[in-house]
Amino acid sequence: MEDKIKEEYFTLLKFPTVGADPAHLRDCTACAVWLKDWLAALGFATELLMPEKSFAPPILFAERKGAEGAPAILFYGHYDVQPPDPVEEWKTPPFTPTICGERVYCRGAQDDKGQLFAFLCGMRDFIEEREKAGGASGLPTFKIVLEGQEESGSAALSAMAPEMRRRLAADALLVCDTNAAQDMRPAIVAGLRGVSHFTLRLSGPSRDLHSGAYGGIAPNPAQGMAELVASLHAPDGAIAVEGFAAGLEPPNDDERGKAAEAAPSPEEYTRDIGCEPAGGENGKSIVERNSFMPTIEVNGIHSGYGGPGAKTVIPSEAIAKISMRLVPGQTPRRAFEAVKAHLEARVPRGMKLSIEDWNPGAGGFRLPLASPLFRLAAHVLGEMDARGPVFQWDGASIPVVSILREASGASPLIVGWGQAEDCIHSPNESYSFAQFDKARDWARRILSSLHS
Amino acid sequence: MEDKIKEEYFTLLKFPTVGADPAHLRDCTACAVWLKDWLAALGFATELLMPEKSFAPPILFAERKGAEGAPAILFYGHYDVQPPDPVEEWKTPPFTPTICGERVYCRGAQDDKGQLFAFLCGMRDFIEEREKAGGASGLPTFKIVLEGQEESGSAALSAMAPEMRRRLAADALLVCDTNAAQDMRPAIVAGLRGVSHFTLRLSGPSRDLHSGAYGGIAPNPAQGMAELVASLHAPDGAIAVEGFAAGLEPPNDDERGKAAEAAPSPEEYTRDIGCEPAGGENGKSIVERNSFMPTIEVNGIHSGYGGPGAKTVIPSEAIAKISMRLVPGQTPRRAFEAVKAHLEARVPRGMKLSIEDWNPGAGGFRLPLASPLFRLAAHVLGEMDARGPVFQWDGASIPVVSILREASGASPLIVGWGQAEDCIHSPNESYSFAQFDKARDWARRILSSLHS
Repeated sequence: MEDKIKEEYFTLLKFPTVGADPAHLRDCTACAVWLKDWLAALGFATELLMPEKSFAPPILFAERKGAEGAPAILFYGHYDVQPPDPVEEWKTPPFTPTICGERVYCRGAQDDKGQLFAFLCGMRDFIEEREKAGGASGLPTFKIVLEGQEESGSAALSAMAPEMRRRLAADALLVCDTNAAQDMRPAIVAGLRGVSHFTLRLSGPSRDLHSGAYGGIAPNPAQGMAELVASLHAPDGAIAVEGFAAGLEPPNDDERGKAAEAAPSPEEYTRDIGCEPAGGENGKSIVERNSFMPTIEVNGIHSGYGGPGAKTVIPSEAIAKISMRLVPGQTPRRAFEAVKAHLEARVPRGMKLSIEDWNPGAGGFRLPLASPLFRLAAHVLGEMDARGPVFQWDGASIPVVSILREASGASPLIVGWGQAEDCIHSPNESYSFAQFDKARDWARRILSSLHS
Repeated sequence: MEDKIKEEYFTLLKFPTVGADPAHLRDCTACAVWLKDWLAALGFATELLMPEKSFAPPILFAERKGAEGAPAILFYGHYDVQPPDPVEEWKTPPFTPTICGERVYCRGAQDDKGQLFAFLCGMRDFIEEREKAGGASGLPTFKIVLEGQEESGSAALSAMAPEMRRRLAADALLVCDTNAAQDMRPAIVAGLRGVSHFTLRLSGPSRDLHSGAYGGIAPNPAQGMAELVASLHAPDGAIAVEGFAAGLEPPNDDERGKAAEAAPSPEEYTRDIGCEPAGGENGKSIVERNSFMPTIEVNGIHSGYGGPGAKTVIPSEAIAKISMRLVPGQTPRRAFEAVKAHLEARVPRGMKLSIEDWNPGAGGFRLPLASPLFRLAAHVLGEMDARGPVFQWDGASIPVVSILREASGASPLIVGWGQAEDCIHSPNESYSFAQFDKARDWARRILSSLHS
């Protein structure tokens, strides 16, 4: 990697862009401005869109007009990152890029600052190459949307996208925010699950109470929340919420077969995650559970004392953070309403449940495998790697991709170069120089092919 | 209250004696030294016992020999306090005694620094009174034990007490760490529940995982802990742990009748706690549930993300803090073993449960209502308040009282002057000057009567 690119990459990583936390709004804004300047230097017309909801980080929209009649290519990425907690588990400071061996350790080193910046570098390579070879007339139109709220649900961009149809209109929607298959075999994402999340707050006594003086008298929200959360699944791990999976569209045999082909084995998962891959519904395959079935996941539960020793209280309230992964046939609203009805019918006596901060997110989608765009991408990826690409139905979500797909009319092409060992969303996230170079090379090659 | 006593009281309150937290060991030691000096000034031989477990706050033992053949009176109190969390709910700094109206607001204003210091002041009044009237020959022997670990289980004193039988030997064991009945009607505690606590740690993946990429694959410890905790109770609120209540001794009719007499109504509880008193087993009376039945209480549950916005992770582990209140017929070990067996039989697939930091505490006890000591106390309390005392079987625990009772051979006499509005263990704990004066007056009067 050239020194200049390494310097730029590290500068980008140093912004602590925790988009979910209003305390980091200033850092997110500074990062967006830095990206704006970077694109402006490459000849883009740039604009920072400041969402009305005042704590949302700005959205960067950039456009570089190409030749008359050339295709328009929309690229989406996000400069926000997951919070670094638990901070004490980081071996290096989470916002100080640190090289160790052939990897860069930093929150966002991969997701998505690393991947998006590698892609932008590949785009710059392509533009410079074409311009050297004969001027701007040979270039497509580029449209770039970089947001700062992906990790917390893309609320602002989701709200604005439908009103930006003309500005977003494009032929292809490129995203570099996913994983390659095992051993870096290229992967085309043929489907994503949707995501939607909310917070549960269960209130009981008006203050924390002495668990001796009031034990047997006052209802306990920590116990009550445990009961509510436990009720979401049956003993066999299946979701126990009536109506949640109504209308769910199962995959076809081609999809199921290709998905199984690309899937790691249970043993590989055990090595990766450090425990038996025992999540989801018993009796279904791992790939089925992750690619084609929905989940209801407790991302956090908090109530009462958690420090050293003991504090014998009945806590006055409990919270839980819940997210749902959705598949085609479900909608965020129907899934949410089903969970809401399930929980509201089970509020333990003496307590009050409030369901807060629902972020609808977006539903999941699956793309047709035989489209011209997929065929072209498969050809390019076959040139990069003789094994050719696998198709994946990622259990993860980029809800805004569903929304941008709709607003832009473009066909999504989602190819990323992450690996499990990057530990995104976990302490000690990292990205290797080899992965960065792949992502950069992919961008240069696919852009050349899309307008050759 | 005399200025001198107010100054001493406030000095005592200012030590942030959170005994459970090793970070406050220095504060606890400073507080114990201050109490040592206070008692030495009153003619006590004093000693700070430094428990072997290095993070345990010191135990203060003080003795003042009385006349030959006079009775020995043992007084027990604790200078440690509950942690002030949640700190943001305090209206005044938790360790700055603040007078508002006729009350002093401070962590420990009542429990137990306020009550123990009021008692010690009453003892000083009595000693000075007797000495003025005719020298030390008319005084009983005083033995005083003040510890700094009551709120976290009295481990050090419990371990040392059996080896201090000779030093502790006494006729009566006085404790001032409980509540009066409604409207400050005096109350004699005729029984206490025991308490025993431990921590659950449920581990799954070796790191926090992306809930999309791994949802349906990795087991979720937050969900698993919710299931474990929920399994401890049946839907009707009864404890669902086999063998937990084996051998439980129900109260006799006299105890049941007297307990009901002193009990607040459900409406009074609703006003006090701010929600319906719906804890414990459906279909049993409040006084039955709080005085004569055991509990298993979740004092805290923590896993994953709890901050603003969302962090869509599968957490790598979950913890829960569990305490049990025990009644006669149960032992801490048998109850703990029953819960342990119950939980270990239910560990969700792919996860590991560890049960840590078990503090056995002590069992509960009930005292015979017709003892000479209770008759004397009832007489003194009748002089202080024409309504006379009620008898209470407190749902709370002072485990060390069981242990000191055994080691000293003394009959316990537990009379305190707390009220629900003192909010002990909650933010904005307070104690009124009127309550302090009652406790002080009680000490002077009962000590006079015990050796008149």
